[in-house]
Formats: sequence, C-alpha cells, structure tokens
Amino acid sequence: VTRWKLTLEYDGAAFCGWQRQDNQPSVQQSLEEAVTAFCKETPSVQGSGRTDSGVHALGQVAHVDIQYPATGEVVRDALNHFLRNQMVCVHSAEAVPDDFHARFSAKQRHYWYRLINRRVPLVLEKDRATRVNGDLKAAPMQEAANLMVGGIHDFSTFRAAACQSKSPIKTLDSARIETSLDEFHFYFSARSFLYHQVRNMVGSLLLVGLGEWSVDDFKRAFEAKDRSKGGPTAPAEGLYFHHVDY
Amino acid sequence: VTRWKLTLEYDGAAFCGWQRQDNQPSVQQSLEEAVTAFCKETPSVQGSGRTDSGVHALGQVAHVDIQYPATGEVVRDALNHFLRNQMVCVHSAEAVPDDFHARFSAKQRHYWYRLINRRVPLVLEKDRATRVNGDLKAAPMQEAANLMVGGIHDFSTFRAAACQSKSPIKTLDSARIETSLDEFHFYFSARSFLYHQVRNMVGSLLLVGLGEWSVDDFKRAFEAKDRSKGGPTAPAEGLYFHHVDY
Repeated sequence: VTRWKLTLEYDGAAFCGWQRQDNQPSVQQSLEEAVTAFCKETPSVQGSGRTDSGVHALGQVAHVDIQYPATGEVVRDALNHFLRNQMVCVHSAEAVPDDFHARFSAKQRHYWYRLINRRVPLVLEKDRATRVNGDLKAAPMQEAANLMVGGIHDFSTFRAAACQSKSPIKTLDSARIETSLDEFHFYFSARSFLYHQVRNMVGSLLLVGLGEWSVDDFKRAFEAKDRSKGGPTAPAEGLYFHHVDY
Repeated sequence: VTRWKLTLEYDGAAFCGWQRQDNQPSVQQSLEEAVTAFCKETPSVQGSGRTDSGVHALGQVAHVDIQYPATGEVVRDALNHFLRNQMVCVHSAEAVPDDFHARFSAKQRHYWYRLINRRVPLVLEKDRATRVNGDLKAAPMQEAANLMVGGIHDFSTFRAAACQSKSPIKTLDSARIETSLDEFHFYFSARSFLYHQVRNMVGSLLLVGLGEWSVDDFKRAFEAKDRSKGGPTAPAEGLYFHHVDY
C-alpha cells in the first residue's frame, strides 16, 4: 500500500463542497470514484479541510491509500483521465510516509479572497471573484486586519454558528491585502481556521474598506467575541483554498 | 438621436460569436434585445469587428443609435440590467458624434492570446485559456514574431479560407510575448486583422516555441504566402479581443 498526497485544483461552483453528500456532487466523491475507476479499490480520500459549495481550490491537499503499484506520474495522469469531465484536477501525486495525514499533519493553511471593485456585473470572472461596488479603500482594511494578526485571539465574532471546533481561540499568522487595478486580494495564513472564518473576516473588513465602519468599530466588533456584532459573511465565490504547508 | 459608443466584455463560450445568426445566441442579438427592452426601439448594433464562437472580449466596441434621451450612466446600467442573465456586460456608454463608426473609425485593434503551459487539464481557467503541454520557450517565439512586425507583409499563410478581406497585405504593428509563471501572453496590435489571423499566427508560433519548427522554418512558412504551409489554427478559447483605439 502506498499513501499518496494529492494536490488538487477545483471549481467550487461545480460542487456542493468538499465533503461527500447524498445526491449532490462533491469533490471527495469525484476523487473517490476516479480512484476506483483507476485501480478498482475503494479507499476513502481525506482532505486537509472541508470547503463549502462555491469555494475554489488552487492547492487543496488530500491523501489516499492505494494498493495498486504505480508511479506518481501515473497516479496523477490516470486520475486526471477519469476526472476529465469534472471541474477538478490533480496537480501532483507524491508518495508519502504512512503517518502523513492531509488534515492532521498540516502546519499552515493559506486562503486567498479575490474581490473585484466595480459597478459593472462580472462576466469573465463570474463565479471566480466577488464583486463589490463603491469606493473601496485598502489601507483601513489592512489596519483593521492587523488587529487580528499574531498572538492568540478569540475569533467568535467571525465564527459561524455551525462551527464544530472545540475552541474559538486561534492564531492568525498573516493577513495581507494587495491591490492590482480594480482587484483586491486578501491573503490569510493560519494553522487552522474556524468555520466561515475567512468569509466572515472579509465581510467585516469590507465594511471598513467602504467607510461604513471605522477601524475602531471593527476593533469593538472583534473584541465583542459575538457573531451578531460582526458584518455579513462574504460570498463563497471569491474564496480560494490556496495551499497547505506540511 | 444619440449615437452611443459601447465598450463590452463577453464570454465567447456562451455565444455562437459576435454576429447575429438564426437560432443561435450571438452577442449582437443579446445587445439588440437589451436595447429594445430598455427603450422600445430596434436599432442595429454595429461592432468594431466580428469574433468567433469561443473568442472572448475585454474591450470590444460597438455603436448604436438611440432616440430615447438618457445619460451614459443610465444607458450602461439599463443595458446591464437587461443583460443580467447573459455572459456580456457594458463597461461604458459614451455619447459620440454621428460620424463615429465602431468598425470604420477604428485606428488600432489589440488582441490578447492567453496560453497556459502545463500537463494537467485546466479547471479554473477552462474555456478562458488554451493549454499547451511540453517544453515551451518564449524567446524563439518572440524572434519568429518579430519577422512579421512593421512594414507591409502578405499574411496569406495566416489567413483563413473564409476570409472576406480584399487583400492579404497588412501591417502588424506589434507582437509581444510575455510570460508569468506557467502562463504565456501574446499581444498583437494592428489597424486590422485577417480572418483567423491571430489564431493562425499563434498556432505557428507554438510550433517554434515547442521546438518543432526553427525560426527559419517559420520564416519560410510566412514567406510562402500559402495557408497550407502554416501551422494549425490555435483554439478560440485562448483569444481575447482586448481593446480598440479610435
């Protein structure tokens, strides 16, 4: 048996999310079916973390155990062959030690939130970014984001009700906002995130960027440790699971 | 009556092309129906040039005459409202003099061809770029492209059989190839292009970039003035009508 680390790209709009669900197309099910089509085995595919419907991945990582002997190139190409009509592909398949676990071995997760600031509807970037109209400013958003970086904080204000984490206490290692023409790119890095944490942080940062909140308003909402004091949840289509460090 | 210059973005994969055709969705028809929905008039919408099915636009230009009095902002927002379920949007509507003509007043057209050099199938960029596998090199492609730039040349080698231009003699003002990670971007500028000229030039340049042709092979093919001596036509999905100068 070889344990394979798979690095994956997918279009979140085509799936109900990462996790297998009855009667809905999930990334996990597509991968498991491709593995079975390749080697006639039925192992489960374990991801580094779940993503919701609409959330994309550029470098999601999963692991799977396969008995059939093959090289990484063959595993990658064979899975891509059986995934050819689906909106997911395998960038690489690397043999890893038996104790590698896509979820529990992860040291750092990196998310990217992509926003386009314009009045006109998105066409070529539809479902690939979130559109925001209005006079959006990066500097106050970065100032507010900096309040969350480093140390340990209670992120209850940005935690979805359905979150299954034991604790809302997390360390956010990095929160960077970059602009390019009419695009705003948010990069967040942490060992782990609460459910909807990135989308909820972005939703509140946008209130600051649009001038509806001051940085102090953001600080008060964050320190309230109360989801009802936070801004709205930013849409899924702008969120990308960027990559994972092990 | 006001003549409006419309700047348009569209997803070529959603249309049979620019030009109105029976029983197939065209960009022209979508726009004309949006104009009618807005002001109950039925003017024709004239584009700066046709694009084929699959070819995208970031800054296609069209003109249309509308009697109903409105500001540019209202025309833009109203057309976007009626186009909201379609893969085309209006970036701007500007009032122009009566003698402005989207096609005949154009001084320079700019095309972008977007290529991703990788083995793995495209997912997030599916239908938005062309994938090429293999060891692609920019420098020899740029050297070959330079042979076509400036002066006047007979572009018959890169002219589709169905081309309706009177003459294959054109001036290509610029041909630039830029790379970024695994992406190759081709930029072409000219007063006008022959039918399929950009896709045919790219198809032959790719033979050079992949080492199947030398730069001299490209030169011989170009100078043969014979389509049968050229490389294949590059796929539509990588081509973007970038913008037009007036």
